[in-house]
Amino acid sequence: MTLFFKVKTTEEVLEIIKGFEPVAEETVSLAQSFSRVLSRDVVSPEDLPGFLRSTVDGYAIRAKDSFGANESLPALLEVVGEIGMGQVPSVAIHKGQAAKISTGGMLPEGADGVVMVEYSQLLDEKTVEVSRAISPQENVIQPDDDFKKGSLVLPKGARLRPQDVGVLAGLGFKEVWAHKRPRVAVISTGDEVIPVDQKPYPGQVRDINTYTLSAFCIQEGAEPQVIGLCRDNFEDLQTMVEKGLNRANTVWISGGSSVGTRDLTLKVIESFDGSELLVHGISISPGKPTIIARIGAQAVFGLPGHTASAMVVADVFLAPFLKRLSGEGGFSGKGCGVVRARLSRNIESASGRDDYIRVKLTRKGQEWIAEPLFGKSGLISTLVDADGLLRVDRNTEGLYQDQIVDVMVFRS
Amino acid sequence: MTLFFKVKTTEEVLEIIKGFEPVAEETVSLAQSFSRVLSRDVVSPEDLPGFLRSTVDGYAIRAKDSFGANESLPALLEVVGEIGMGQVPSVAIHKGQAAKISTGGMLPEGADGVVMVEYSQLLDEKTVEVSRAISPQENVIQPDDDFKKGSLVLPKGARLRPQDVGVLAGLGFKEVWAHKRPRVAVISTGDEVIPVDQKPYPGQVRDINTYTLSAFCIQEGAEPQVIGLCRDNFEDLQTMVEKGLNRANTVWISGGSSVGTRDLTLKVIESFDGSELLVHGISISPGKPTIIARIGAQAVFGLPGHTASAMVVADVFLAPFLKRLSGEGGFSGKGCGVVRARLSRNIESASGRDDYIRVKLTRKGQEWIAEPLFGKSGLISTLVDADGLLRVDRNTEGLYQDQIVDVMVFRS
Repeated sequence: MTLFFKVKTTEEVLEIIKGFEPVAEETVSLAQSFSRVLSRDVVSPEDLPGFLRSTVDGYAIRAKDSFGANESLPALLEVVGEIGMGQVPSVAIHKGQAAKISTGGMLPEGADGVVMVEYSQLLDEKTVEVSRAISPQENVIQPDDDFKKGSLVLPKGARLRPQDVGVLAGLGFKEVWAHKRPRVAVISTGDEVIPVDQKPYPGQVRDINTYTLSAFCIQEGAEPQVIGLCRDNFEDLQTMVEKGLNRANTVWISGGSSVGTRDLTLKVIESFDGSELLVHGISISPGKPTIIARIGAQAVFGLPGHTASAMVVADVFLAPFLKRLSGEGGFSGKGCGVVRARLSRNIESASGRDDYIRVKLTRKGQEWIAEPLFGKSGLISTLVDADGLLRVDRNTEGLYQDQIVDVMVFRS
Repeated sequence: MTLFFKVKTTEEVLEIIKGFEPVAEETVSLAQSFSRVLSRDVVSPEDLPGFLRSTVDGYAIRAKDSFGANESLPALLEVVGEIGMGQVPSVAIHKGQAAKISTGGMLPEGADGVVMVEYSQLLDEKTVEVSRAISPQENVIQPDDDFKKGSLVLPKGARLRPQDVGVLAGLGFKEVWAHKRPRVAVISTGDEVIPVDQKPYPGQVRDINTYTLSAFCIQEGAEPQVIGLCRDNFEDLQTMVEKGLNRANTVWISGGSSVGTRDLTLKVIESFDGSELLVHGISISPGKPTIIARIGAQAVFGLPGHTASAMVVADVFLAPFLKRLSGEGGFSGKGCGVVRARLSRNIESASGRDDYIRVKLTRKGQEWIAEPLFGKSGLISTLVDADGLLRVDRNTEGLYQDQIVDVMVFRS
C-alpha cells in the first residue's frame, strides 16, 4: 500500500488537514472564556449603552440654548441639579436650564447635548455661564451607538482575546458556547528512548518528544494526554494507539525516523478498522518522514523521532491542524509571530522540497537580522539557540545574503 | 501632593516600572514548566549525547578502511554484527570490519565513522561492499557535540518554550527553578458599575474591567485575583486595596477616570504606611489619567475606568510590568506580535503626547493594510473590531497615508 504513495507538498498536506472536523461545543463561563473559540455567532441581546450617555464631564443642556454663545457673549443657564453616576436623572431640562453631569452619566430628559466643563463657569450655585455653542448630540453616545440589539458582536470561530471577553461582559453574557479544547494523545516510541528520570546507559536517550509535544499543545490551546513511552513492538504500540483514540481527539506518535519503526507505525495504523493513510512523506526538510492517517474521524500523526524535525512538523502542520480542530476561523493568524528580517548570509537549498531552517534573530538599529543556525543533524542545542523558522520555498534554489525574509517566531 | 506632579512620558514610566523586583522563585516539575521563567541559569549536568552517535543509517567502520573506495573499486568489509538501538555494542571493529547501525545508534569500539547505507551493498550475510570513502568522524556526533558538561543551556530570565522544555528533558532535569507566576489583585470601582449577572438600570454599566484585566493577566502568564467591585467610597476601597496587597504581588484599580474617583484612589493609596506616588498622569492618549504608586515593595496601579483606555495602558505598560515581575529577561520581546503595515489614511495627532490608535489589519497581496478605527469616545465595540494598536509618537504631528508603520498585534 505504501508503495503507491507519493510524497506530498506542504500545500497538499494543509488541504488534507482541513478535512478533519472541529471538536464538539460546550458552554463556558465568562471568567473561563479567555482564549476559547466561539462555536456560535454572538449576537447583541440589547442596545448598548441603552441610554443617552455623556462622553465628557460638563453640563447637560438643550443644544439650542447655546447657539451663538462665545467667550464675549456667553449663554447664562440655570443649574437645576447634578446627575449622579449610575442614576436615572431625577430632573428634566427645560428651556434655559442645565444639569451637571460626569463622563458616563445619563442625560436627563430634555437635554440633547453636553457642554464640556472647560467651556463653562459657575457664577453661583444656580447659574452657569457657557462660552461655546454645541450642536445637538455633541459629546453624547446614542443608546445603540455601541451595539444595536440583534447585531453580530463576535463571529463563530473567534478565539477570545481579553477585550472580547470584556465586550461579552459589557453585554451581560454569563457564559458562551465554545468548542472544547482539543485533546491530543501523545506517544513516544523507540527502543533507545528512556523516561526522563532514568539515567541513560551509553546508546540511550531520554524521552524529549513527550515534553515538547505536550508543551506545544498547551501553547496552541489544546490539552495533551500523555499515553506513554512505547517500545518498538506491534502489540504495545497498538494498545497505546487504541488508548489514545479513546481518550483524545487525535493521536500523535513520535519516533520512527528509522525505516523499521516507521513501518511499524504504519502497520499499527492499518490494523484499525476504517483506517486510511492520507500522507506518507512530505516534501520538506527536516520532517520528510511524516505520516498522517485517518482512523474513523480521528487523525493519527506519525512524527519524526528527532525533536528538531518533529518541532518543524509541529510548527508548520500541527499548529494549523489544532486551529482546525479548535474551530478557529481562518487558517492563518493575522501574521502575528512573523517578523521581517534581513538575512545574514546566503542559504543554498535543494529545489523540489521546502527547507525549514532555524534562525537566530538579533536587532540591528531598526532591523532584525536573521542568522541561520546550522549544526550536525541530530543536535538538540540548536533548538534553544533559535528564535524562529525560515522557510526556503521549493521553487527557489536558495536565499541571498541581505535578502528580506519572513521569520516565523517561536512563542512561549 | 498631587499638585507637584508632572505628567510623565512613556519612557519615564517604563523606567519606573523597572524599579520593581521580580517575584520569588519556586521549583516547578518539568511537565509544568512550559511558559515559566527560569530564576537561575541552567547548566548542563553532563555531556550530551554522552556517546559517539551515528547520524545516519549505515555501517560503522574504521574510516581508513574506506580510503580510496569508489564505485568501480569498492572496499570489501566483513560484517561482524548489528548494533541495536539503545544498546552498548557487544562487538568491536577491527581492521576490515563493519557493523550495521541505525540513526542514533552508538558506535562500537574501534569505529570512527559511518558509511551511509546508500553507498553500501550487502554481498552476503558476512560481507558488505562500500563504494565511497568517508573521513574520520563522518556522520558521527561527538559525545559533547550537543552540550558540554558545565556549559550554559538556558539563562536565568528565559521564558520556557516547548523546545526549551524538551532540551531540559533531554538533559534529565525533573524540575527547574522558576519565578512564581505574579499574582495580580483586580478591583473595579464606580458607583455606576454593576456585576455582569445583574440587569443594568438606565445609567448603569456592567463591570467589564474585571474580565478584561483578568484575561490580560492570564495572557501574560500572571494569576488574577478578583477582589471585587467597589463603590466610590473611601473605607470600602481601602479595605479592598488592603486585601489585594495581602493576596497578590500588585494591585490594579480600574475606574476613576472622573476627577472625583481619581482623587479617591489617590487618598486611599496615601492612607497606607510607606506609600509613594510615582506616576500621576502619562502623556499618552487614551490612558492619560493613570496612577502608579508604591506601597512597600508592591506596585499599585490606578487605571482609567473606560475599558478601551485601560487596555491601552495594559498593552503599553502592564505587559512590560508583568514581564518585569515575572523575572523575564529583556524588556521587549523579539518583535513578536509586531507587524509592518501600510497605513490606509492620514492620521492627525496632537504633539506632546503619544497617541495610541486601534487599527484593523487586512491583507492585500503581500502587504498588511492598517485601517485606523475611529469612534466616539466611550464605545467598546471598537475593541472587538481592532486587530492591534498603532503608536503615533509625540514628536510627530501625525502619520501619512501609505506610510509603513509598526502595529502591535493583539493576541488571544
